Amino acid sequence: MVKPGGPFKTPPSRTLDSTFDALTPLTVSRRSHIPAFEVMRITDEIAKRRAAGHDVVSLCAGEPSARPAPGTLKPAGYTGPLGTMPLREAIAGHYLDWYGTEVDPGRVAVTTGSSGAFQLVFLAAFDPGDRVALVSPGYPAYRNILTALGVEVVEIPTGSATRYQPTPALLDAAVAEHGELAGLVIASPANPTGTMLRREELTELADWCRTHRVRLISDEIYHGITFPDPGSPDPRGISALSLDSEAIVINSFSKYWGMTGWRLGWAILPEELIAPMEALASNFALSPPAPAQELALTAFTPESYAERDAVVAGFARARALILDAAPQLAWGEAAPSDGAFYYYSELGPQLERFESSTAYAQALLEHANVAVVPGNDFDPVAGSRAVRLSYAAGESAVAEALERVIRFQNAG
Amino acid sequence: MVKPGGPFKTPPSRTLDSTFDALTPLTVSRRSHIPAFEVMRITDEIAKRRAAGHDVVSLCAGEPSARPAPGTLKPAGYTGPLGTMPLREAIAGHYLDWYGTEVDPGRVAVTTGSSGAFQLVFLAAFDPGDRVALVSPGYPAYRNILTALGVEVVEIPTGSATRYQPTPALLDAAVAEHGELAGLVIASPANPTGTMLRREELTELADWCRTHRVRLISDEIYHGITFPDPGSPDPRGISALSLDSEAIVINSFSKYWGMTGWRLGWAILPEELIAPMEALASNFALSPPAPAQELALTAFTPESYAERDAVVAGFARARALILDAAPQLAWGEAAPSDGAFYYYSELGPQLERFESSTAYAQALLEHANVAVVPGNDFDPVAGSRAVRLSYAAGESAVAEALERVIRFQNAG
Repeated sequence: MVKPGGPFKTPPSRTLDSTFDALTPLTVSRRSHIPAFEVMRITDEIAKRRAAGHDVVSLCAGEPSARPAPGTLKPAGYTGPLGTMPLREAIAGHYLDWYGTEVDPGRVAVTTGSSGAFQLVFLAAFDPGDRVALVSPGYPAYRNILTALGVEVVEIPTGSATRYQPTPALLDAAVAEHGELAGLVIASPANPTGTMLRREELTELADWCRTHRVRLISDEIYHGITFPDPGSPDPRGISALSLDSEAIVINSFSKYWGMTGWRLGWAILPEELIAPMEALASNFALSPPAPAQELALTAFTPESYAERDAVVAGFARARALILDAAPQLAWGEAAPSDGAFYYYSELGPQLERFESSTAYAQALLEHANVAVVPGNDFDPVAGSRAVRLSYAAGESAVAEALERVIRFQNAG
Repeated sequence: MVKPGGPFKTPPSRTLDSTFDALTPLTVSRRSHIPAFEVMRITDEIAKRRAAGHDVVSLCAGEPSARPAPGTLKPAGYTGPLGTMPLREAIAGHYLDWYGTEVDPGRVAVTTGSSGAFQLVFLAAFDPGDRVALVSPGYPAYRNILTALGVEVVEIPTGSATRYQPTPALLDAAVAEHGELAGLVIASPANPTGTMLRREELTELADWCRTHRVRLISDEIYHGITFPDPGSPDPRGISALSLDSEAIVINSFSKYWGMTGWRLGWAILPEELIAPMEALASNFALSPPAPAQELALTAFTPESYAERDAVVAGFARARALILDAAPQLAWGEAAPSDGAFYYYSELGPQLERFESSTAYAQALLEHANVAVVPGNDFDPVAGSRAVRLSYAAGESAVAEALERVIRFQNAG
């Protein structure tokens, strides 16, 4: 199952290292060598025979005739373990639309949210004891899923010096301290900071991973929720896939498309991880939710992009309110909120009154009825001095919250 | 986080061993000791404060205002990691209705299908290197998920002598051969055999697990799809929960309720596993699918039970067709199809023409357009002689399939 990463398509914007073909193939985890659930494979074969005009009677799947939701969507049966082909094709089309990057639909794995993608990708790519680097502050589930799966997490503390993102120098230092890495998880825009990697920065990271034979996992769930300067070359974010076809890209319908509760995401996989992912998905999940897949087919129309961009414009207005209020908040250093809908800031002088951001957040909720997230979730070390504000709630909620926060602080 | 199994409610039908309170608590896995995702906890707290009349502005969740499906269901945001409280209460009510067993809704974890329950329960209960027993033939995903999570699977081969179910004697033999067990997975009705445990058999297994401090995980996904004799004391199946409050019970809306593609299931947990499951679910899944949870609230009405029982009556007719055709099929020994919608049979004389059930199934699909599942999926050893027929497709599909199978065999 372990084989090199398939044909390496020339990305539009950089020259390839001609030694690429000589690089060691990236490994596939030993634990992903489980059999696929045969019933799901036969189900696929039945679909192909039917498509070819055969009148197949199936006594195969353990699936009663599906029950329609009362008066709503169509009945929804299992789909293939990596999702329906129309949706996989539509997702591939999205990469051409937004990034000018061709993706084979067979490399698209539809998953139960990006959460489903992370757990299956981590299982497929890493074995217990492998080391995977990620930055703090960062999304806590990366760390927690990896830890529960026996993978050693190497935390790279970051701050404003590198815009809360990793750099080759930080990775070199991590390797020197902890030993060789098997993987690196990056996010741009990032949670909780909202900071984004510029094209040259992402290129350097991809090159570092390629040279060191480290799997690059790029969380692109906040792509499209970006606040670029006019004329920016990469207004939606830069997909790692445009720079390195070996990268694993993870995304979701939850954020830009606002489909959180439907639990639908995807991963774009290098060739050698497709079969392991299919085996894992067919055992761990059977299939991603079918009604969500049906609905998601409507996500890639011009009308849908226009609707979502209007929502993003609302986030931009809410963001502006926070940036404008920053002097009045009189907190400490804040990360540049390039994208996503997060504002991550040290509390600065507020920590003279409150012993930690947790104490501050608790008091704010109790006395001013404003909920913010203390930074500990994202950074077990320095997070006790910071909070994350989500401005996904929109302009009026943010305006009301800011007023309450300032009143709460002044009353203190 | 490790504490005894909470108050042990007297089950209706048996006397408790008075030494129960002195038993060693069952362990919780080390790997489940990850922090819960704080955002999900704060989201819960916000909901509670709002329910208490507070006007909370939340800058907490990274969740854009949800997008409604075009013209269909309501917008669907994240729910709590263990599901919505109304659904957890409704599921608890189902245990009172069907089994006369009281369940605290706080012990109900709603999951992304029973698949979501299995992976999270296995993570919460077992560490790498632990031994978990299951029978073959059996549902392959138990074995494959456990293997991928580093748990040692102890396969107990079964046959007609014990109606394809485990017994205390078989468990004693497994321990003698492989060493102490941490868990036992049972299923009644079972996949692929459809066989069910009688009350006294399940009681013996629960007692064996309790005495040996082995976690009992009872897959009850086919409950309600049963073909009991008139006057049977347990027409829907016996829940392990009625016999042992330490048991972990797993079920789903996929089979009896026909909601396969919606991906919704649940686990009933002993007290000490609730917090670990919540931590795992909040990192691995965030929340189960929300529209499915909304729809599932309609599952527990008298109308819904009546509708589903009519579907089961259809399965019973399809089953009768197969049992009646058995002499003409002239296969080998078949498991008693007590429940579910499966008929599992050795191929007997057919194996003189085909080298394995895989070859038989492939030829049947190619030449007669009938899909059945070879037994290898369920039993890597003896499965090459057997096939599973699912009669979930209903009476007319089964009638047509049987005609084709008999024609195919006679033409050979």
